[in-house]
Amino acid sequence: MSLYPVVLCGGSGTRLWPASRPDRPKQFLPLTGQWSSFQETLLRLAVIEGAERTIVVTGPGMVADVLSQAAALEIPVTVLIEPQARDSGPAVAAAAAFVRALDGEGVILMLASDHYIGQPELFAEDALQAAEAASKGLIVTFGVQPTSPATGYGYIRPGEALEGGVFKVDAFVEKPDPATARGYLVDGYLWNSGNFAFRADVMLGEMEAFEPDLAAGAIASVEAATAEGPLVRLDAEGFVRATRKSLDYAVMERTKLAAVVPARFTWSDLGAWDAIWEASDRDGDGNAVSGDVILVDSLNTLVRTDGPTVGVIGLSDIAVIVEGGAVLVCRREDAQKVKHVAETLKARG
Amino acid sequence: MSLYPVVLCGGSGTRLWPASRPDRPKQFLPLTGQWSSFQETLLRLAVIEGAERTIVVTGPGMVADVLSQAAALEIPVTVLIEPQARDSGPAVAAAAAFVRALDGEGVILMLASDHYIGQPELFAEDALQAAEAASKGLIVTFGVQPTSPATGYGYIRPGEALEGGVFKVDAFVEKPDPATARGYLVDGYLWNSGNFAFRADVMLGEMEAFEPDLAAGAIASVEAATAEGPLVRLDAEGFVRATRKSLDYAVMERTKLAAVVPARFTWSDLGAWDAIWEASDRDGDGNAVSGDVILVDSLNTLVRTDGPTVGVIGLSDIAVIVEGGAVLVCRREDAQKVKHVAETLKARG
Repeated sequence: MSLYPVVLCGGSGTRLWPASRPDRPKQFLPLTGQWSSFQETLLRLAVIEGAERTIVVTGPGMVADVLSQAAALEIPVTVLIEPQARDSGPAVAAAAAFVRALDGEGVILMLASDHYIGQPELFAEDALQAAEAASKGLIVTFGVQPTSPATGYGYIRPGEALEGGVFKVDAFVEKPDPATARGYLVDGYLWNSGNFAFRADVMLGEMEAFEPDLAAGAIASVEAATAEGPLVRLDAEGFVRATRKSLDYAVMERTKLAAVVPARFTWSDLGAWDAIWEASDRDGDGNAVSGDVILVDSLNTLVRTDGPTVGVIGLSDIAVIVEGGAVLVCRREDAQKVKHVAETLKARG
Repeated sequence: MSLYPVVLCGGSGTRLWPASRPDRPKQFLPLTGQWSSFQETLLRLAVIEGAERTIVVTGPGMVADVLSQAAALEIPVTVLIEPQARDSGPAVAAAAAFVRALDGEGVILMLASDHYIGQPELFAEDALQAAEAASKGLIVTFGVQPTSPATGYGYIRPGEALEGGVFKVDAFVEKPDPATARGYLVDGYLWNSGNFAFRADVMLGEMEAFEPDLAAGAIASVEAATAEGPLVRLDAEGFVRATRKSLDYAVMERTKLAAVVPARFTWSDLGAWDAIWEASDRDGDGNAVSGDVILVDSLNTLVRTDGPTVGVIGLSDIAVIVEGGAVLVCRREDAQKVKHVAETLKARG
């Protein structure tokens, strides 16, 4: 078995305004420490087999960031460039077709570029376990032990135990309401983290069975791709024929090959500022601070500034984000509402 | 009786960081509307007798701001330039000596440049009443009806009623503790607003009686002053001989000529951000906003920005000040603690 790490590096996200903007996607921002989550993902992979074969799937506008941030870590990557964003299904199918052409039995370890993982050493163990199961023909997802009845994630109902610490998936379920989510916690459901291991040929087989147009378009885009150094430009004519659909809808919710590894690592999708605070190092007062910040009588805050001096007095459980010439002040628990501000700004132009 | 308005325009203040800085004194900032409090003071005087004789006492570093802000209103001023800051006693004595040289019985209406007054028309009536009493030899202060047991102001105990709506002053008392302040409210004490009316010769007589060195130094600095257009540079040799002392200590707490006009106008010393919020126009949600601000679920806030977009979500009764490349976030009731931040920055250099 040979492992091929694939990092999905699309998307932007409006809930981390003002740090993330359309032209500054969140995966390239240092949100929880020195490195961006894209770089943390590369570092996480670097200690696992096959890191030298790492493939990044991204859009044309992000190639420069991908190359420079990988170069800063001296990690070589092959970059598959999507001619346009068509959700995760075509991206995964193209990566699978690319790997299959290199290695008929290659196993893909497919990771999001904008997640946080707390213990890279536990992740490495779980990833090898998932890859082992994938090499036998399963499509393996990483299921995260919920720490709260979150309504922002899909859930997985684990089924019977298979060999090697892997479980069959009984069902993928959509984002629940709060009461349903509380029930899921009691019943041992797991969060669907959106990270996977699968054999390239197995994934393409399922794609061809469930979504033949998606598979055919993606495969054609790889066959007619043009390569230049580390860059592989997927052919636009093929790629636009691939059905615009997420991997979950296209395959995961339908396949009988789905399995889950219960993750031992801590995980966050870094979806909003409260999640950034959770994933950040904090001082004895619970404050996570970066930049030129003066705190007076304040607890459990997240305060970030990319330059201007920031003074915070007598306020707890808030986030103050001063980045890119804009300022956000919000209660941590209101972090999801940041998208309203970003949308207001977008509507204004 | 001829009225000579005198505006004291020194000081800076650390409690309005980040808007006020050592090089951006608060009296030149637009804090409650379009104009700075210095300009509001000039506008307030413009409808009262003698406005064309307005004198501004200031330091060398503030002359440019004084001239440009007065010019923006097309209000001519004479600027007395103090060679150095020596508290209010020498400034008042020099202004009195300057006016006495112009008009042996001139009455000075002496105003701070960094206060807010709510109703200029009531102020004008009160000022003329005070000036009338001053023309008869009293040193008249404006006493403000307290709206809270504030511990940040000195208080005045009014005594017997004199003619023309003026009362004798029984005592000036220092800034009280909270319990004492509550007693003062019950007993009808007034806040000492630090604005006055007096005859130039009467004030100089009291100065000479209580503080002969202060009076002699100030008078000498006027006699040897050099004039150039609207600028009158007080002579440094004389001025530095004037005792460094406040008007209150030098004269008001000792003179038997003290009288008080109970003010009918609303007043604030704009001492900290909570006072700015109080003095500002507010919308139906109690928010006083200036600049590019997006508020979500927030009440009774003061949000000011001189450029950067500011989003505030789910926070009430706070101040967010984004000015001069720095950011302050504080509870309105903690506004007095801003000086800690300003001092921390000063200590850092």
